[in-house]
Amino acid sequence: MIFYFAKKSVAIAAHLALEESGACYEAREIDFAATEQRSDSYLKINPKGRVPALATDEGIITETPAILAYIAQTNPAANLAPTNNPYLFAKCQEFNLYLCSTVHVAHAHRVRGVRWADDDAAILAMQNKVSKNMSDYFDLLESEIFVGPWVLGADYSICDAYLFTIAQWLKGDGVELSRYPAISDFEKRMRSREAVKRVVSIYDI
Amino acid sequence: MIFYFAKKSVAIAAHLALEESGACYEAREIDFAATEQRSDSYLKINPKGRVPALATDEGIITETPAILAYIAQTNPAANLAPTNNPYLFAKCQEFNLYLCSTVHVAHAHRVRGVRWADDDAAILAMQNKVSKNMSDYFDLLESEIFVGPWVLGADYSICDAYLFTIAQWLKGDGVELSRYPAISDFEKRMRSREAVKRVVSIYDI
Repeated sequence: MIFYFAKKSVAIAAHLALEESGACYEAREIDFAATEQRSDSYLKINPKGRVPALATDEGIITETPAILAYIAQTNPAANLAPTNNPYLFAKCQEFNLYLCSTVHVAHAHRVRGVRWADDDAAILAMQNKVSKNMSDYFDLLESEIFVGPWVLGADYSICDAYLFTIAQWLKGDGVELSRYPAISDFEKRMRSREAVKRVVSIYDI
Repeated sequence: MIFYFAKKSVAIAAHLALEESGACYEAREIDFAATEQRSDSYLKINPKGRVPALATDEGIITETPAILAYIAQTNPAANLAPTNNPYLFAKCQEFNLYLCSTVHVAHAHRVRGVRWADDDAAILAMQNKVSKNMSDYFDLLESEIFVGPWVLGADYSICDAYLFTIAQWLKGDGVELSRYPAISDFEKRMRSREAVKRVVSIYDI
């Protein structure tokens, strides 16, 4: 498999899951500074012009939660998600979807506001609300959603890889991770895992 | 099961899948006009204050793609997703995730801009870009992603329920569905299904 990633992107989540899974893969960096994600050759891999993308023997998969679930399902020995229980799998998916469609989207309004408005004042107005939104969402994650010691409870899962990734964005978004004791402890616990150490060194975080 | 929905919301996607699945459920409407989604009793069901939510014997599931996958996995006879093949299931998830985190999010900037900015000029600037974004995304769906006659090819799936739902929003977003011949035909094909007729009558669309 070939895993396409970029530094300063959400790709780290799937990268962490791959590294935990024991799967054989090659990581290939896409240079956002050179807008390689919009190059003809990359658009053939992912016509959406985004990372991550995972090229498998059967074809290419995009969208972080889809890649995460695929890694868990195809590497059952790594026990990265409750793939054999539809309800527990749905709860795992629900968590990843909240990060994907609400939390990541809120963060993107600081760094990718041009997606949703063209004038500079509007882009600034969006940036001004990111800190409030991210702190509201992490309040909910801390108080209602995160179980501990891992996201879903006793077992490490793909959800942990994803939450760790988004937690790295908080500081830039003007929110102190230390406001969330359970998630802050979790973030430290993540950094003690060997797979996390290997991936973190690639992303310089 | 109890399915919590609201008119003029994305809940129709999961509602369509439930109706196709043959599962036994009760549909309960949440009154957005009375902001019932923020009531104490509903926040106990979904602390995020959104619809849809599906209360099962095991617990409550939220987030449309998670609910869709759960309905498909727990009603295998209805054949609503390729749940036994991790790659094909990932492609199904990938489609739903694109709708969820990119297309639905783009549409939401017309009707829910207050989530991402506080001042009226910025909210207007966001609204002004919705038509362009939605038409770009439907260009990609039409040309690169939709297979036909159904989203994934020969078999009807949960992806069809979701695409049908979002296609209903195009007109309000200033985009003519007829610009997309394959998806326009698909939308008509959907309306000939008995399950779709039953659900459409509830939502007045």
